[in-house]
Amino acid sequence: MVPAGLWAFLLCACVLGHPKQTTSGGEDMRNCSVTPPYLPVTAVNTTIRLKDLRQQMETKGLDAYIIPDTDAHMSEYIAKHDERRWWISGFSGSAGNAVVSKMKAALWTDSRYWIQAERQMDCNWELHKKVGTSPMATWILAEVPAGGQIGFDPFLFSIGTWKSLDLHLQGSNRSLVAITDNLVDHVWGTERPSLPSQPIYYLQENFTGSTWQDKVTGIRNQMQTHSKAPTAVLLSALDETAWLFNLRSNDIPYNPFFYSYTLLTNSSIRLFVNASRLSSDVLQYLSSNCTGPMCVQIEDYDQIRESVQEYATEDVRVWLGTEYTTYGLYGVIPQEKLVEESYSPVMVAKSVKNRKEQDLLRAAHVRDAVAVIRYLVWLEKNVPQGTVDEFSGAEQVNKFRGEEEFSAGPSFETISASGLNAALAHYSPTKENHRTLSQDEMYLLDSGGQYWDGTTDITRTVHWGIPPSFQKEAYTRVLMGNIDLSRLVFPSSTSGRVVEAFARRALWEAGLNYGHGTGHGIGNFLSVHEWPVGFQSNNIAMTKGMFTSIEPGYYQDGEFGIRIEDVALVIEAQTKYGGSYLAFEVVSLVPYSRNLINTSLLLPEQLEYLNQYYKTIRQKIGPELQRRNLMQEYEWLLKNTEPLIDNSSWVQLPASLTILVAATLALALGQSL
Amino acid sequence: MVPAGLWAFLLCACVLGHPKQTTSGGEDMRNCSVTPPYLPVTAVNTTIRLKDLRQQMETKGLDAYIIPDTDAHMSEYIAKHDERRWWISGFSGSAGNAVVSKMKAALWTDSRYWIQAERQMDCNWELHKKVGTSPMATWILAEVPAGGQIGFDPFLFSIGTWKSLDLHLQGSNRSLVAITDNLVDHVWGTERPSLPSQPIYYLQENFTGSTWQDKVTGIRNQMQTHSKAPTAVLLSALDETAWLFNLRSNDIPYNPFFYSYTLLTNSSIRLFVNASRLSSDVLQYLSSNCTGPMCVQIEDYDQIRESVQEYATEDVRVWLGTEYTTYGLYGVIPQEKLVEESYSPVMVAKSVKNRKEQDLLRAAHVRDAVAVIRYLVWLEKNVPQGTVDEFSGAEQVNKFRGEEEFSAGPSFETISASGLNAALAHYSPTKENHRTLSQDEMYLLDSGGQYWDGTTDITRTVHWGIPPSFQKEAYTRVLMGNIDLSRLVFPSSTSGRVVEAFARRALWEAGLNYGHGTGHGIGNFLSVHEWPVGFQSNNIAMTKGMFTSIEPGYYQDGEFGIRIEDVALVIEAQTKYGGSYLAFEVVSLVPYSRNLINTSLLLPEQLEYLNQYYKTIRQKIGPELQRRNLMQEYEWLLKNTEPLIDNSSWVQLPASLTILVAATLALALGQSL
Repeated sequence: MVPAGLWAFLLCACVLGHPKQTTSGGEDMRNCSVTPPYLPVTAVNTTIRLKDLRQQMETKGLDAYIIPDTDAHMSEYIAKHDERRWWISGFSGSAGNAVVSKMKAALWTDSRYWIQAERQMDCNWELHKKVGTSPMATWILAEVPAGGQIGFDPFLFSIGTWKSLDLHLQGSNRSLVAITDNLVDHVWGTERPSLPSQPIYYLQENFTGSTWQDKVTGIRNQMQTHSKAPTAVLLSALDETAWLFNLRSNDIPYNPFFYSYTLLTNSSIRLFVNASRLSSDVLQYLSSNCTGPMCVQIEDYDQIRESVQEYATEDVRVWLGTEYTTYGLYGVIPQEKLVEESYSPVMVAKSVKNRKEQDLLRAAHVRDAVAVIRYLVWLEKNVPQGTVDEFSGAEQVNKFRGEEEFSAGPSFETISASGLNAALAHYSPTKENHRTLSQDEMYLLDSGGQYWDGTTDITRTVHWGIPPSFQKEAYTRVLMGNIDLSRLVFPSSTSGRVVEAFARRALWEAGLNYGHGTGHGIGNFLSVHEWPVGFQSNNIAMTKGMFTSIEPGYYQDGEFGIRIEDVALVIEAQTKYGGSYLAFEVVSLVPYSRNLINTSLLLPEQLEYLNQYYKTIRQKIGPELQRRNLMQEYEWLLKNTEPLIDNSSWVQLPASLTILVAATLALALGQSL
Repeated sequence: MVPAGLWAFLLCACVLGHPKQTTSGGEDMRNCSVTPPYLPVTAVNTTIRLKDLRQQMETKGLDAYIIPDTDAHMSEYIAKHDERRWWISGFSGSAGNAVVSKMKAALWTDSRYWIQAERQMDCNWELHKKVGTSPMATWILAEVPAGGQIGFDPFLFSIGTWKSLDLHLQGSNRSLVAITDNLVDHVWGTERPSLPSQPIYYLQENFTGSTWQDKVTGIRNQMQTHSKAPTAVLLSALDETAWLFNLRSNDIPYNPFFYSYTLLTNSSIRLFVNASRLSSDVLQYLSSNCTGPMCVQIEDYDQIRESVQEYATEDVRVWLGTEYTTYGLYGVIPQEKLVEESYSPVMVAKSVKNRKEQDLLRAAHVRDAVAVIRYLVWLEKNVPQGTVDEFSGAEQVNKFRGEEEFSAGPSFETISASGLNAALAHYSPTKENHRTLSQDEMYLLDSGGQYWDGTTDITRTVHWGIPPSFQKEAYTRVLMGNIDLSRLVFPSSTSGRVVEAFARRALWEAGLNYGHGTGHGIGNFLSVHEWPVGFQSNNIAMTKGMFTSIEPGYYQDGEFGIRIEDVALVIEAQTKYGGSYLAFEVVSLVPYSRNLINTSLLLPEQLEYLNQYYKTIRQKIGPELQRRNLMQEYEWLLKNTEPLIDNSSWVQLPASLTILVAATLALALGQSL
């Protein structure tokens, strides 16, 4: 799946047009320029909420208050409990920040959400379309008088955002005021969804790569050998703590995480979490009844700031990853006691899977392939009846995944997009708003599952009729890009950004391209977008044992969208002359769409790679389908993994040879007549 | 040519072994661990120089003094007049910084120069092998007591070096003291080569892309549209001023530049130069007898610091490129009056050649190809006689270039390297130290010329016997990389770093690689390494009209070295589906080595590209050779540009087709018998 964050690295504007949705028009959007303003039924009345918030602001002496779209852990998905920006503005999109001043309220969001914002916000709100800290800072400078104060919740600000905003306001005679007590929460009051409180459980040993004790020891070893000799590692991202202790729960949609922090020191393990969520079994698992360096002390989640602050009064150095730590914790540690890196050692260790974790992820992808193949067969039968729409399709694939062993739900909101909707890279259908699948249109399915052994993410684009030649060419070129990157051999420690153009070359050649990143890391029953692995400029170098998606695409605005996404494991390459080289082993095992491949465009080595991949699919998925007696699916698999041949190879022969063959044939035929 | 600076971006250590030179051994290197120390005849006695320098330091109250390897313009090559580091240390290598403390003297240089340093320095000097600001700062902190002062010449420090060193010393209670009066110059005294003073001349109109007036107007237009509204542009790099005014001279080896600065304001043009070098003709050319905004005011070169400082007292903003400005000028401009970018607008404008400049550079490359082809033919005749060595070869190619129209000498020191010497990327032979060329070894020639219409740079690697299959494979893979990058189509504004891996893929596939950058910009009778164009991480995005070298290589330490370098123009690409795309037009027109190409490794599209390139060479160079009646060379050209065919294409046919052909042939033969 294309992570939303990757859109920050857009290379072209081709997919950034206004989203064209199936039902749109004036009546379902607000019109604030008429009197009285026109508001659709979907608009939320925020007058009272804003009045209450401004009252809170006044008690704190604030001229403006910033409401970001994240939680205290910089999570990609957030719990209802944290949807402050949604509640105060009415706008429910996943990306967008708000600022409320004494007189105005403003929201900044990107083009994917402009229509949605116009439908959901009332006329108390301005919509701003240029995102980033700079436009917001400019607005604040215009709204807040000199000497004014701008309030923010330091737990909802990344270090980077804080630094950037602080820089923008420097010398402006306006000050940023950190208020740990969130003002929206005050106003939201009892209406606010409560903090998730389901039990936290530990993974059975067969679903873990190593024990939490081994992981703790590994991180402590890194602390000891670090040149700056950190005395502690502070973990803020939810998947860091979940990974470290092999613990899971259900606080965040699509992510099996739970609200927590960890302060791992050289002599203690301090887990900040709501203790009532831990059964005695879990407490015992964590050795929480002792006090040695290998016993986990359970501390109150809300005490993290005070505890870090107190710890930082001692002669210590706290190692943290700046990408996932909020200013709320960063700000209480004196500068000279910080050991700052972009990613914590846990984030980096987590990204490199050991042999057992690799096998677990491979196994999850085998079952996931079965679910996707069942869905593709189901579509082949049902789409011609006209009974499948984007939403019911998404439900169906989720159902098939749910029937797989160890299933724990989808790993993100299924992107099930037909025709022109597939040109919107983050489109998801709703019960109310969707398109019926048709034999005459391409259909893009980008979906994934959470399983106890691994997280999956795969995109296939299909067509059940006779695709127009341009669609076929575009699909083939996307596939060529996927293949060229998947079959690349590259030196150890190469950064993804250095090689990602191989996924684009075949498109570029024809004047085509795509406007999103080429891939992202993925976890073992953790995040579907697991940083810092991938092909972006801020990803770390590739290492044996990492998993990344490879997902080139092509989007024709208003017409169709193509994406072909596989997950691949980084493995050691055996080259002719040795050396330390890497390659990819693709673990997503679902055939591509035969009727969308123009084999005459494929180079011989691409065709060879493709047929080898199909052989692997047969070997790994065939027996699984037979074992389950999914014979229709097995037939489908065989049919769809038949070796492809290049029908145009005659044309590609050297001219001299073609003449020779033709002459010989003529001679032979002439003589045999 | 591989620029020395690119070594900062080394990707592998494979070419970084100790240089193996033809004559080496204990006796020609110093041995400071015996009593008395052993010094070779090549060592320079620096005892008195150091004593004198330390006296100077004492008068200034300095505990240490830094002597960098550059000049006041951050030039790649420097005049004898500026070789302070060489004079004080005895070490003449092009890269290496020195620090003299009260008791010690230390030099930092990279592996290319370690042996040379041991040969040239006496035992007053420590040799340090880890380069960069950090190791030097660590040494200074150990040598200079708390409260101590470290002197430096601010005109020999880039802004970056100064910031980095300043950061390292922060909080150490040691201070950096800028001393504009260079202490080495004081000690050097009358022995010091005088400032170059040859006449400065202007280029005839047929050798320039536009008049200096048009260039000045263009830069002023950029100032007007710049968001920070700069009132002036300050030019420090020598090629900036040379380009802006279409002026040239001869101060720097290989570069037709002259000592100068320019302060171009919105109402004046201030050229800082030794006025006595300007004839009345040149003064008239520069309209220096008037005072309007389009008249050039000639001011004293030595007055630049005072003039900038004075200008900066007014309500102004000075736009400069931080990469080429020294702290000597940067430091006198208040921070709020600076408009800092990595490269000045002149540097960026210069990098994009207009149509006329493109034609000039193309024409220079046609004549340059004639010279190189004459040399290759000459080698073919003379190498078998055993009469050619690396040094006489270099002289011969320089001679052939010198016979070309508009020739103005080599554009860098010719790299003429046989056998194992070619594995050293910056090896140049000397009259005393060189290897005889042999039919049994590969020979690498990396050379270029300065012509009034353009600067050239080309590398060819040849073998006159039967090359071993590994050498042939390595050569072919380097060629495949050169072709893959040369034939790439990529979106406008793509950065070189995003696509440079295409030059490496064919090598990587076999476990091979090279440890230097893939290319650099080049000028119109300017620098052979013209920043900021190229494939490095700090190069700017590719634009139509830029020229860059493309130069993958492969180096087998102690055995052989391969590099294939061409210069290419960035042009608009015509793609099937339009869009704004770029491609390369290779303007170096010399055939590759047929006996080193294993055609069976080439992909069909690589072969097709190669044969198309050969066709272009025939079209463009053939008539030129005929016109000059260079018939031997013309025959050689025809022979060496015969279309290549893949002899192994039968093997690559689909099996089914091979059987069909074989069966048909059998049938035909059977029937005709």
